[in-house]
Amino acid sequence: MSTNVLSFDNPLFGKFAFSSGVVLGKTLLMSALTVRSRLTNKVFANPEDTAKFGGVEPTVSDQRVERIRRCHQNDIENVFSFVLVGSFYLVTDPDPWFATLLFRTFVLSRCLHTVCYLAPLPQPSRFVTCLTGWGVTALMTVAVIRAGSF
Amino acid sequence: MSTNVLSFDNPLFGKFAFSSGVVLGKTLLMSALTVRSRLTNKVFANPEDTAKFGGVEPTVSDQRVERIRRCHQNDIENVFSFVLVGSFYLVTDPDPWFATLLFRTFVLSRCLHTVCYLAPLPQPSRFVTCLTGWGVTALMTVAVIRAGSF
Amino acid sequence: MSTNVLSFDNPLFGKFAFSSGVVLGKTLLMSALTVRSRLTNKVFANPEDTAKFGGVEPTVSDQRVERIRRCHQNDIENVFSFVLVGSFYLVTDPDPWFATLLFRTFVLSRCLHTVCYLAPLPQPSRFVTCLTGWGVTALMTVAVIRAGSF
Repeated sequence: MSTNVLSFDNPLFGKFAFSSGVVLGKTLLMSALTVRSRLTNKVFANPEDTAKFGGVEPTVSDQRVERIRRCHQNDIENVFSFVLVGSFYLVTDPDPWFATLLFRTFVLSRCLHTVCYLAPLPQPSRFVTCLTGWGVTALMTVAVIRAGSF
Repeated sequence: MSTNVLSFDNPLFGKFAFSSGVVLGKTLLMSALTVRSRLTNKVFANPEDTAKFGGVEPTVSDQRVERIRRCHQNDIENVFSFVLVGSFYLVTDPDPWFATLLFRTFVLSRCLHTVCYLAPLPQPSRFVTCLTGWGVTALMTVAVIRAGSF
Repeated sequence: MSTNVLSFDNPLFGKFAFSSGVVLGKTLLMSALTVRSRLTNKVFANPEDTAKFGGVEPTVSDQRVERIRRCHQNDIENVFSFVLVGSFYLVTDPDPWFATLLFRTFVLSRCLHTVCYLAPLPQPSRFVTCLTGWGVTALMTVAVIRAGSF
């Protein structure tokens, strides 16, 4: 039975694939947002960029661009961790109802996190959404460590 | 049949493993390049590094080192996304010809991206190579989301 | 037989899952450490953070916070690479004794790396621990590339 865990024959795999696709896709969109912000505000980090696309001195301290970059960086830390840990978690044969709850919680918390960061909404809204996603990944990590052996 | 998808019995898996190995290996080389640039230019971020390896004040704004670091960071964002999304994409049982085309396109675009960034070549060469790799991952992400379920 | 490689029926998978869980969990803890350091030192990057949690001007150059962030960033680069490459490596059907040695070496080197970075210990201790983990991932990458095909 374990041989079919990592296939769409396993409904839980389909849910994990969907959740992972959504949050990874959201992370891809942050790259696009950063590029758009750079082009709109004419803020670039490299001299060859300003030479082609306009703008003054190359800089890495424009706060409009840096906010999007920090949001993107936070996605990379948290989303990649979720997908990596979640793949092992799936193989631990978790309770489908609880696993589905974890996947959905993560997706919603990360989408809300992006809204909180880019709006920006007053704290602690961003802190709470980030902590929620972090908690999901932490729970799955504990399950994976307990299922494995040194 | 789906049980053999994630093994070298599946030719497409072998191609994805090779492509992933090459781009992940390239990302590893960027770490080594950063270290070499730090040692050659005596540019370090921590006081214990300058104490041992020489150099003046710790800094994070040397443009020779920062260019390599930005290239490395761009690899992390894009290469890790490709491998994560691609693993799910492989399980969606894609058309082997099209999937092979996507994998090869990604590998070539990322290798060219590094050349464009480090040379550096005039824009929009780097922009186009980055967008190409991004497009490959985006296409695979859409296929994964469509194959999964919430 | 290859169909059971990615399950806990394969003892090597259990070891890889454990190793990956530990280093990914350690990376999660770095997020928590960064947040603790921000709250303790009242150092934040966004105006909405200082408005809620106190502190003076938003900054990204406080050296206490930045050291933890660099350590975290180094984890992201190296730990995520290890887990991604290791998943393919597992499917290449490696010698279990050697693979176990690689996994354990990686886990220990990354834990020591964090100690070296946060203490901080004099160089080249951090350099050696980082290079050790890097070498493990590089060895596995070569094995994956050799097992795959373009």
